[in-house]
Amino acid sequence: MSGEPGDALRAALAPHLTEPCLLAVSGGPDSTALMHAAAETCDPATLRAATVDHALRPEARAEAEAVARQAAALGISHSILTWEPDGPPPRTGIQAAARAARYRLLAAHAAETGAARLLTAHTRDDQAETVLMRLCAGSGPAGLAGMRPVRALGAGLVLARPFLALRKADLVAWCEARGVAYHRDPSNQDDRFARARLRRVLPLLAGEGLSAERLARLAERAARDDDALGRIAEDALSRLEHSGEGALDGRALAALPEAVALRVLDRALDRAGAAAGRLDRLERLGAALLPALREGRALRRTFRGFLIAADPGGTIRLAPAPPRAALRGDDLLGNG
Amino acid sequence: MSGEPGDALRAALAPHLTEPCLLAVSGGPDSTALMHAAAETCDPATLRAATVDHALRPEARAEAEAVARQAAALGISHSILTWEPDGPPPRTGIQAAARAARYRLLAAHAAETGAARLLTAHTRDDQAETVLMRLCAGSGPAGLAGMRPVRALGAGLVLARPFLALRKADLVAWCEARGVAYHRDPSNQDDRFARARLRRVLPLLAGEGLSAERLARLAERAARDDDALGRIAEDALSRLEHSGEGALDGRALAALPEAVALRVLDRALDRAGAAAGRLDRLERLGAALLPALREGRALRRTFRGFLIAADPGGTIRLAPAPPRAALRGDDLLGNG
Repeated sequence: MSGEPGDALRAALAPHLTEPCLLAVSGGPDSTALMHAAAETCDPATLRAATVDHALRPEARAEAEAVARQAAALGISHSILTWEPDGPPPRTGIQAAARAARYRLLAAHAAETGAARLLTAHTRDDQAETVLMRLCAGSGPAGLAGMRPVRALGAGLVLARPFLALRKADLVAWCEARGVAYHRDPSNQDDRFARARLRRVLPLLAGEGLSAERLARLAERAARDDDALGRIAEDALSRLEHSGEGALDGRALAALPEAVALRVLDRALDRAGAAAGRLDRLERLGAALLPALREGRALRRTFRGFLIAADPGGTIRLAPAPPRAALRGDDLLGNG
Repeated sequence: MSGEPGDALRAALAPHLTEPCLLAVSGGPDSTALMHAAAETCDPATLRAATVDHALRPEARAEAEAVARQAAALGISHSILTWEPDGPPPRTGIQAAARAARYRLLAAHAAETGAARLLTAHTRDDQAETVLMRLCAGSGPAGLAGMRPVRALGAGLVLARPFLALRKADLVAWCEARGVAYHRDPSNQDDRFARARLRRVLPLLAGEGLSAERLARLAERAARDDDALGRIAEDALSRLEHSGEGALDGRALAALPEAVALRVLDRALDRAGAAAGRLDRLERLGAALLPALREGRALRRTFRGFLIAADPGGTIRLAPAPPRAALRGDDLLGNG
């Protein structure tokens, strides 16, 4: 960062603070810097902060209360939100479950308190780890877009990550320079968690040139490509929709580049209210459907709870699939 | 592989062997399997093979001669092509220099001998390493597309990699099962080379789920997205070209998704015969040019040896840049 270190934080925050904001503050260095820098950038009385107590570590409550005291000293309203899982917490994927619960609680709290933006303190280093984790998990290029700097959460709420281009080291240094206290989450060093293990692999790849900066730049470029293909697919879907509900011009679909055609199919299913689906299954559907459309063959497949029927004339119809028992056996063969 | 192991190799090769082919055979297990499987799949007398002697290792000549003897026993015409670098071989980037020289020699030999296809024995494992190396080197999603299964080399010659979906282990097993001799290149184990070092990092990432299969699938998906954006950019460029040479409708350009607009600019410069350029510099040009076009501001930049001038009316003109000395200083300020 050039200039006074606080400049970069305040410059990153300022565009977001024109709307009522809820700050997600765990009490680690990044979110502590977020809270203090926000208090320097606008009237603290207009801000709200919240800390989620996942009740997974014995010291979590005390940490949340320490954040509450800091917020009070800054003049920021603060709430502690408690995660109460139905039954015992899951033994595997606990970090993913905690993350999902955290966003649910924060979004609900934002809605209750009239916040238009939920701000988190994710850094470029978090982004790099996310990209590397997704790479390992088998993501396609869209997944490598990582966390988006700004994302709609629905119901008028926007999730924004103002620090996504900043280095974690700069946020730590910012706290240190001002003598601002923060805690370190011990699970960051806990090898049971993939993110902590990856933090140890990154230095090995650094020897080959990989850096958090390069991973974050890949995320930006992947987001740019995916956004373009998404916009092109939306436009194509509007052109391809027949007047009949759930009917598409399949020949025009099959003439599109495959990456666009698959996204059009995916969005058509989204709009029809289909369940979530996996990319590899969408690819298998496309590998069966697109050649059939080009060759004027009839085809029926079920995917994401929908029956997708192409007729030899080249029209595709989407309809909720009847219960499995009601289908004849041959409808189920080779379903993507 | 299911069925008799040779089936997968012959099935992968058959579509290529309908044209006159030159096989690139180093004598390692992969290319040895390529040569022997090709001889089983078509009339060996229609095939040619070539081995490049890079003269970098003392045993290279003897290995090339061993390949020549195997080819003769199979009834395949074989040539040894020798790399004679101008001056001593480079001390850094020697593998990249050797690879570039290899392709030059093989393409020239293919042209001389009337081959329409140059076949290499790259496997899914090579693809995975290529993707990981490019990730480390800071590639964007287009670079993560890795090696393409089929690629035009110009002058009617096509480079094809029939084994790109096969595992190296299957090719080694294929050779072992038939008692076919091959050699191992000691530079594969030489830690001076990035590829060899990455081969040691991969197992660490495997603990997080990463596999050659996942990296190869990412390459396929990245190629699918990049091919789509490339096709869309080609179509857009045709629409945007004004009747005047080197003139583009800049307002329409700036209304395109950024990932498409950047590719249109890149292709327009390609067509105009511009020098090669780096993605990050193209991005900086776009970051200056696209807002100017949207806001109706005039702008001049040089990039890839071309002067790119946007006028307030929204037309872009590309023209070879005058020598630097002939430009006024302000034309050079902030050039992307």
